[in-house]
Amino acid sequence: MSRPTPLSGFPELLPAARAVEREVIASLSRTFELHGFVNIETRAVEPVDRLAKGGEIDKEIYVLRRLQGSPEAEASADTGSDRQLGMHFDLTVPFARYVLENAGHLAFPFRRFQIQPAWRGERPQEGRYRQFTQADIDIVGKDELPFHHDVEVMRVMVQALGALPLPRLSFQVNNRKLIQGFYRGLGIPDVTAAIREIDKLDKLPAGAVADLLVDRAGATTEQAERCLELATIRVSDHSLVERVQALGVGDELLSRGLAELASVLDGCADAVGASAGRVSVEANLRIARGLDYYTGTVVEIFMEGYERLKSVGGGGRYDALADDGRTTYPGVGISFGVSRTLVPLLAEGVLSGSRAVPSVVLVALADEESRPVSERVADALRARDIACEVAPSPQRYGRQIRYAERRGIPFVWFPGGDGEADQVKDIRSGDQVSADAGDWRPPEQDMMPAIVAHATGSTDERQTQ
Amino acid sequence: MSRPTPLSGFPELLPAARAVEREVIASLSRTFELHGFVNIETRAVEPVDRLAKGGEIDKEIYVLRRLQGSPEAEASADTGSDRQLGMHFDLTVPFARYVLENAGHLAFPFRRFQIQPAWRGERPQEGRYRQFTQADIDIVGKDELPFHHDVEVMRVMVQALGALPLPRLSFQVNNRKLIQGFYRGLGIPDVTAAIREIDKLDKLPAGAVADLLVDRAGATTEQAERCLELATIRVSDHSLVERVQALGVGDELLSRGLAELASVLDGCADAVGASAGRVSVEANLRIARGLDYYTGTVVEIFMEGYERLKSVGGGGRYDALADDGRTTYPGVGISFGVSRTLVPLLAEGVLSGSRAVPSVVLVALADEESRPVSERVADALRARDIACEVAPSPQRYGRQIRYAERRGIPFVWFPGGDGEADQVKDIRSGDQVSADAGDWRPPEQDMMPAIVAHATGSTDERQTQ
Repeated sequence: MSRPTPLSGFPELLPAARAVEREVIASLSRTFELHGFVNIETRAVEPVDRLAKGGEIDKEIYVLRRLQGSPEAEASADTGSDRQLGMHFDLTVPFARYVLENAGHLAFPFRRFQIQPAWRGERPQEGRYRQFTQADIDIVGKDELPFHHDVEVMRVMVQALGALPLPRLSFQVNNRKLIQGFYRGLGIPDVTAAIREIDKLDKLPAGAVADLLVDRAGATTEQAERCLELATIRVSDHSLVERVQALGVGDELLSRGLAELASVLDGCADAVGASAGRVSVEANLRIARGLDYYTGTVVEIFMEGYERLKSVGGGGRYDALADDGRTTYPGVGISFGVSRTLVPLLAEGVLSGSRAVPSVVLVALADEESRPVSERVADALRARDIACEVAPSPQRYGRQIRYAERRGIPFVWFPGGDGEADQVKDIRSGDQVSADAGDWRPPEQDMMPAIVAHATGSTDERQTQ
Repeated sequence: MSRPTPLSGFPELLPAARAVEREVIASLSRTFELHGFVNIETRAVEPVDRLAKGGEIDKEIYVLRRLQGSPEAEASADTGSDRQLGMHFDLTVPFARYVLENAGHLAFPFRRFQIQPAWRGERPQEGRYRQFTQADIDIVGKDELPFHHDVEVMRVMVQALGALPLPRLSFQVNNRKLIQGFYRGLGIPDVTAAIREIDKLDKLPAGAVADLLVDRAGATTEQAERCLELATIRVSDHSLVERVQALGVGDELLSRGLAELASVLDGCADAVGASAGRVSVEANLRIARGLDYYTGTVVEIFMEGYERLKSVGGGGRYDALADDGRTTYPGVGISFGVSRTLVPLLAEGVLSGSRAVPSVVLVALADEESRPVSERVADALRARDIACEVAPSPQRYGRQIRYAERRGIPFVWFPGGDGEADQVKDIRSGDQVSADAGDWRPPEQDMMPAIVAHATGSTDERQTQ
């Protein structure tokens, strides 16, 4: 077999980088579970007719066929029915299907988190991959879902991301009711078109968007001006309500949306505070997140210094995540792009793993005959949750120490023998002490590979477990 | 959207069952890491020309194409080259490719574990799925890999599986050198053919296999008899060596294989003892694991009462896991079928999860206005790693308790108010006590959903965390 080369769009991580990704996933999972979110895993495939909705995404769907097999035999052999299978391109479509399929066995409101890969056959670029891992949380109700769950989902994601050593994240929140109510109260003829045009503000200059509002949404120049004024509001405190009210538009839906948005800001304040500056939450009234699904709270997450990645997460409230004709399942959720965030940070060395192996200790080997002695030391350490490995061969101790160094293993253990005590050496400091495998413990921060965050543009480093 | 139905061959788990699978994966991972095994994750796809080897498995490979796009545009758009992509059908092929691709960045011997799904377009049946999760451990060397790693891999898997509350598992071990040496020493003309025919002993009666040995491997009736005698040996202690030697065949390769096999049994003895009867290891001299790859130790794992699933795991030593023309990477590894084992056990209720949510506590809600009070209690509990959720609506307390019951949440917390102390109720026993969210702790076994193992044919239950 010749030496293989990477596949564009399918990033893979070396062991130390994978340790970072695992710790990120474990940390997110811990926060989600502390808030009562249940983990589920859905299969990688869905019937294509449930995936393809006639939108832009359709042409990125990967469809499966078997390598050998006629197309006819195919369909029935593959699915037990006549349906073609495709790989899911997000975790929302499979989750909605899972809720419908299992509704009778789930208790609502149903809080779930899901951390899995998804696949899109798009052109690979930084932060956009053909296989990428996402971490999604959603709360789904049966027929109804009170607004306080919007606050809950936002707060949980702020806490979860605030616990990670990432560059500063900004949650930019808006509310579709607020926008719709404002446009309606303003008297814009085509509210839906107006939202679509305003959504172009991150690609077009304000003047061009104003023209589109006039041309396509039937707005007057004066109305278009007001729409742009609304869209420029970005605040993170209670001045939000005054700022919007100062625009002089009155509408019942606007008032409700504004109250909801203010509640989200309020509800996240303590979690933002606890993040020690890692996360901010602000109202940004130009955020709309396209036209589909969303009916209330909407959010996009940006990472400081990585605005080129666009949003690294987002979500919102949808009144009908799923619907089986009899029952409607409203939901609110946020998705975080694990690969989109970590792959660039790992590639640039902003994040790295403290070592490539879980082992805290390399147990040295005096000679091949005494392997059982070294194994017994290792087992005694493992019995107390200390990961370790025994040297593969009885080389000179200097070479065994270098073996540990190359892997980032911080301690080398030398079994005594003939009544002598064992010795353990911290190979970073060179300190060597007598020790007993039955009670020695490494410092807590050495127990597992840690994420090392190299602050960009400074020599400051911070470690997290 | 109409109510969806399950896809045959793509099992999915309800939340409580998924909690069991997660705990199994976490437990396996903990054991692997304690022994210095590194986790990696490979992409789901490989170039088809690396997957398809002209064997039976080829027609089960799922190949990807994009939903829209000409076949020409396809190939280059999908891979950046002209190679078609298929989904991996095991974790060994992608691991071998990963080793070759990253050899310069890995430290050898390289211990890795990998727990991921694989896909095969085969006919679904109990224990065989189109998407299934495997847990693989391998140790790979550069140019050489000492035999003691065979013992290590076996011992680690015995420990890992011995920590799980599964029906009793039997590791059945053999050694290809032993078989080959025996056949060679016996004077069988076609040793390779003989191994292939002996491998049919689980499908054909002994007499039929004897005939095949004569017809296809050129054995005499007497030689065929000896082959069958060897194949019937099943022992778990040192009588192994005597039993084989009693057959009177002398060969240097046979002796080495016999010594290796005896070392594997010896090396696993302590781990078998520590498993409290959950795992046994025995030499079974009919195990050959097909013809490919394996060159020394081979093992298959069976589950008591589930022999119909065939093996639930297996592996062995291969002298060339990978080879790039200049360097050879020998390896030894074992794969455990997570889905193959758990899906039937969960379906039959042999294993179940103690609850469907991570929450230990439901914090009750007196009225909607006091939601912040209940949230503060919840946050205080979470700060000490106690998972909890706040009741979704201020129903009568009796209904809030039933809400907790339906989810299996063991405790309901009633915030005090007006200087009264909070109360916490164990809804299983009905016991209710005063408590402070700053120092109350649930019993350790309630902290996480636990695996409940229902011993088949008895009312005995054992719990594991």
